Amino acid sequence: MTEIKILKIGGSVLTDKTVLESAKMEAIERIAAEIAGHDSGLILVHGAGSFGHIHAKNYSLVERLSREGVLETHRSVVRLNDLVVEALRRAGSSPVPVHPLSCTILRDGRIEAMQTDQFGEMVDWGLVPVLHGDVAVDRSRGAGIVSGDQLVTHLARSLEPEIVALGTAVDGVIFNGKVLAEVKREDLPEIGSELGPSAGVDVTGGMRGKLEELLDLADEGISSLIFNAEKAGMIERVLGGERAGTLVEVKA
Amino acid sequence: MTEIKILKIGGSVLTDKTVLESAKMEAIERIAAEIAGHDSGLILVHGAGSFGHIHAKNYSLVERLSREGVLETHRSVVRLNDLVVEALRRAGSSPVPVHPLSCTILRDGRIEAMQTDQFGEMVDWGLVPVLHGDVAVDRSRGAGIVSGDQLVTHLARSLEPEIVALGTAVDGVIFNGKVLAEVKREDLPEIGSELGPSAGVDVTGGMRGKLEELLDLADEGISSLIFNAEKAGMIERVLGGERAGTLVEVKA
Repeated sequence: MTEIKILKIGGSVLTDKTVLESAKMEAIERIAAEIAGHDSGLILVHGAGSFGHIHAKNYSLVERLSREGVLETHRSVVRLNDLVVEALRRAGSSPVPVHPLSCTILRDGRIEAMQTDQFGEMVDWGLVPVLHGDVAVDRSRGAGIVSGDQLVTHLARSLEPEIVALGTAVDGVIFNGKVLAEVKREDLPEIGSELGPSAGVDVTGGMRGKLEELLDLADEGISSLIFNAEKAGMIERVLGGERAGTLVEVKA
Repeated sequence: MTEIKILKIGGSVLTDKTVLESAKMEAIERIAAEIAGHDSGLILVHGAGSFGHIHAKNYSLVERLSREGVLETHRSVVRLNDLVVEALRRAGSSPVPVHPLSCTILRDGRIEAMQTDQFGEMVDWGLVPVLHGDVAVDRSRGAGIVSGDQLVTHLARSLEPEIVALGTAVDGVIFNGKVLAEVKREDLPEIGSELGPSAGVDVTGGMRGKLEELLDLADEGISSLIFNAEKAGMIERVLGGERAGTLVEVKA
């Protein structure tokens, strides 16, 4: 069995979140090149950024189903996924797209079921599954958003990865103007009020939502990193096992 | 719970199987219009036709993994899926693409695991899942082909559909120049030798392979129809509950 690494790249790293469907192609190419040298065991998850969030807001997908909204939002994020997959292929990886809409069921906006056995098979054969924030059916409300962050924590629970790392457009969790080297559950009341939403349109919760996902994961014994994926070389370092940014740590 | 109907449209109906990636757009539009009026509870599966089969042959995907072959073949069939989904949307349905590569694990070329709960949720909310013949990971050989026919029988076993119908480019199972009104397991030795492969490149077994899949299904108590989807009006009739073509019947 290949040791599994789960890397998420935030939508704000890959796109300009304030402009509809504006991919940052230079960043995508650089990230693909950094990943390609360290892609053994890798499962990549990327955010939707301005591919999807704006659609989702228009269609009120967070609260309720719109059938057109499901298809339009999905198609939009798949366009970003295509760009990421293609960049990885050019960089020398063997990416395969995996769409949450095809394999996920939500209840009240949380993943209730998602087949994950295929990911271990894929990485064992040298393929790099590339997932993304998406729409998915929801047993309680028809359809909803499944965020990249939620996908990461769900995969981490199922697959016991060696590394869980979330690349964002900031250096980590910032409190009083400084990057915290680590965050534990007990720190949340103090720092929580400073964690606003991320820049631009975001239907999935920003840094606070991200941290809450990762603290839940830490409660189950899986620590993770929040680091800056906009800085060249950081992805390579993190995939190589280095610690960077903020470690979301299990309780002592 | 919505009553489920599983309709497969063969790749030779939607494409010219002898020419790489040649979609028959008129047929796709007509079929979409026929489906749109009868899409309650519908799960649509389509073959890959000349999108995929030729790639799969080039990359020897039937026997062994080629990592580039997985992505190239998948992308090719997704291009056909996009055309079908878009035609359905224009015709007034609410299609959503579902890609087997995202949710299926094979072993020795047969489906070992495939999450199917999402399909019931989709049809309950008025969405029409549109699946297709695809590549998927295979525990024994890295990756392989999952045919539309195999998807149909797997879904039928999981979802207890009211209707299982396979639209082809012929009127049904033909023996001695005539369409058989029904076929049972015990008829196979007699008629099997006459069932050659279908026209053009086909990596998934042609009429004989189809019939073997459906007789296995009949052994489990689920009958199915093989009918001509090139004749205008047939899909509407079949989705409306009429019998047409050849009934693959459970044992008496």
